[in-house]
Amino acid sequence: MSTIEETIKKMAIDAKKAARKMSSDAKKAARKMSSLSTEKKNSALLRMADALLEQKEFIRSENEKDLAAGRKKGLSNAMLDRLNLSDKVISSMINGLREVVALPDPVGEVAEMVKRPNGIMVGRMRIPLGVIGMIYESRPNVTVDAAALCLKAGNSILLRGGSEAIFSNLALARVLQDCLAAADIDAAAIQVIPVTDRSAVTYMLGLEEQIDLIIPRGGEGLIRFVAENSRIPVLKHYKGVCHVFVDDTADYDMAVNIVMNSKVQRPGVCNALETLLVHEKVASDFLPKIGAALASAGVEIRGCEKTCAVLPVARQAVEADWGMEFLDLILAVKVVPDLDAALQHIVRYGSQHTEAIVTNSYANGQRFLREVDASAVMVNASTRFSDGGQFGLGAEIGISTTKLHAYGPMGLKELTTRKFIVYGEGQVRS
Amino acid sequence: MSTIEETIKKMAIDAKKAARKMSSDAKKAARKMSSLSTEKKNSALLRMADALLEQKEFIRSENEKDLAAGRKKGLSNAMLDRLNLSDKVISSMINGLREVVALPDPVGEVAEMVKRPNGIMVGRMRIPLGVIGMIYESRPNVTVDAAALCLKAGNSILLRGGSEAIFSNLALARVLQDCLAAADIDAAAIQVIPVTDRSAVTYMLGLEEQIDLIIPRGGEGLIRFVAENSRIPVLKHYKGVCHVFVDDTADYDMAVNIVMNSKVQRPGVCNALETLLVHEKVASDFLPKIGAALASAGVEIRGCEKTCAVLPVARQAVEADWGMEFLDLILAVKVVPDLDAALQHIVRYGSQHTEAIVTNSYANGQRFLREVDASAVMVNASTRFSDGGQFGLGAEIGISTTKLHAYGPMGLKELTTRKFIVYGEGQVRS
Repeated sequence: MSTIEETIKKMAIDAKKAARKMSSDAKKAARKMSSLSTEKKNSALLRMADALLEQKEFIRSENEKDLAAGRKKGLSNAMLDRLNLSDKVISSMINGLREVVALPDPVGEVAEMVKRPNGIMVGRMRIPLGVIGMIYESRPNVTVDAAALCLKAGNSILLRGGSEAIFSNLALARVLQDCLAAADIDAAAIQVIPVTDRSAVTYMLGLEEQIDLIIPRGGEGLIRFVAENSRIPVLKHYKGVCHVFVDDTADYDMAVNIVMNSKVQRPGVCNALETLLVHEKVASDFLPKIGAALASAGVEIRGCEKTCAVLPVARQAVEADWGMEFLDLILAVKVVPDLDAALQHIVRYGSQHTEAIVTNSYANGQRFLREVDASAVMVNASTRFSDGGQFGLGAEIGISTTKLHAYGPMGLKELTTRKFIVYGEGQVRS
Repeated sequence: MSTIEETIKKMAIDAKKAARKMSSDAKKAARKMSSLSTEKKNSALLRMADALLEQKEFIRSENEKDLAAGRKKGLSNAMLDRLNLSDKVISSMINGLREVVALPDPVGEVAEMVKRPNGIMVGRMRIPLGVIGMIYESRPNVTVDAAALCLKAGNSILLRGGSEAIFSNLALARVLQDCLAAADIDAAAIQVIPVTDRSAVTYMLGLEEQIDLIIPRGGEGLIRFVAENSRIPVLKHYKGVCHVFVDDTADYDMAVNIVMNSKVQRPGVCNALETLLVHEKVASDFLPKIGAALASAGVEIRGCEKTCAVLPVARQAVEADWGMEFLDLILAVKVVPDLDAALQHIVRYGSQHTEAIVTNSYANGQRFLREVDASAVMVNASTRFSDGGQFGLGAEIGISTTKLHAYGPMGLKELTTRKFIVYGEGQVRS
């Protein structure tokens, strides 16, 4: 068996030819995957969970090459931490695999079967999408998490991770592929593209005959690059600029809890709160309460004029603060005259990710749910719940803020589609 | 009010600016459309049905301009017939509008509401997609049919029809817009782009911030042009190369009925049969029966060697006949050794549109349904049933043979998506 260094060298000779070959192998594998039994897919997933443990030394030694190169390149500690396949990260990948085993297999489900007037039975059967292209940045655990979901949904996956994780990704792929082969599944169903320059991504994005869907995960720059260069449908979200609107009927304690949890529990993620909107009727009562809580959590406040008048600690917000994804302990705060103004603000500055209202008004809650155009809209709950696991999808392959096919967190079902099936008894059209 | 000639002239001055303005007006209108009541949408649709009758003279006089220009340009009779807004076509548009009124409104439906362990209720609410761009060729009735479906699903629509139908399309749009205004709905929800050159299409396909989905309808050339130039998701099918496989357990009479109906009932449409596959065990019995029926209907047969040996009337097929969309009274016929070979043939030459098997074998029927990758897969029924109306969707805005978002005939539901909604009682994430 060739070393991973040899694999990389071999690919570099003709990256385009190799990418085409990989994607057409993936397509062939996908055709067979679509009729695999759930048992077979689960048995491969369980093998993978065992193999990650058994092959831990191999994985860690390849991971060490990436870490060494990263240290040499002067990557930040945060970046190195993301790269690191620690025992904890390996355990979490193993748990993830076992959780995917436990999820129901969406493929083959038949629904909405109706009998038409002429007697034909028409229904919809859930089927895999085919080949998924995953383009991501530094975390090598995505390789395993995404491959597991795609396998369970009957899809092939082509993975193109960040160059700084190339050894780790290829090592993980080799372990997974061995398990596929041992389970008598075409190993081309899970492939990591061993090319590290961006031209390979561009080339991959043009293979619309081979790849059915592209899911990019990473910073806004990567995602825009993918969206602008893809001839294949892309499910993506650029960013999460989430708002909480505290209306004039809100319970203050509940509002403080929700705002604090949304902002502080994990500020660096896309479902964290970025802008707080407060109804002017309650601004002078509520702002001091939330101001104190935010201050004690070390959150910087950038407020509108009215906010600053009530909260002297707040810095004056500039136009760029509205709609800004801080991903940090910074919160923009604006006082608005009413629900309509809050809705208008969200239309203008929101990112269609997650929006929440805190209210005790039945009418306002219902109106907010109905009228806000975002992939997740909440009444009296933290924006941090916007997540496949929290919503009960089991696991999440990504979040979409575009409306075609999927809107919001995407789980196994979103990796499938449905075809029409017809049972007839010889009917013809008149 | 300006004449339609004036509208066209005004637009031609700065087509790009005008297209941008129209699409941004459409987007603004869409925001309001999403919360319109079903009653209001239905009342606008009923007004439109009445107005098409009341404004028949205006519509026909504008249509006459297109017909005169078409005759001058030497359009074929078939083309002129497609352009013609005859009494029959106008009646059918009126009936179509009334049928859309009768369909249930998909918007606002909440489904899959579950209570999560922490008590939050998570469900999915159906919402409009936003702005639909429809790009089509000569039939002006598409203007009304598509606008009605988009309106009912709460979307705005930007229509860009063929240049040869420009007066008809603008006249119809004006009638529809007057009805929107009378029903107190933003008239920008239905707009025909009054620019006839293709650069306007290209420009429209780049407005990804304004338009959510493009649906092209027309010949393969138009659809490829749209798919290759669009930065907006496109739902499309290039062509329909439909197969019927007559397996060795098929009832011959049923097979003859299904093959004849699939091929002959309307040969020029995408769900018509193009290639017949026959199990070799029954070839010598079945081929003479179907051969006689096809001959009496004037269908030319292009057969494989084995077919020609049994049916001397058949012409020898060439490679290009497999996978050819004849859209005419021509049928390719191939004898295959078994179901596997039939499935292989469909993988290689099919267009993922509609595929059917005629069989009395339970196992073969189930396997065909499961394994064939096409938007509609049928056992013992005519391929001609692959249609939104026949499948019970009510009406059809198009057919998709790509798997993202919709696969197969698309009705009202396919013009919507779903967002997550959450009802909480103050829950936060731990």
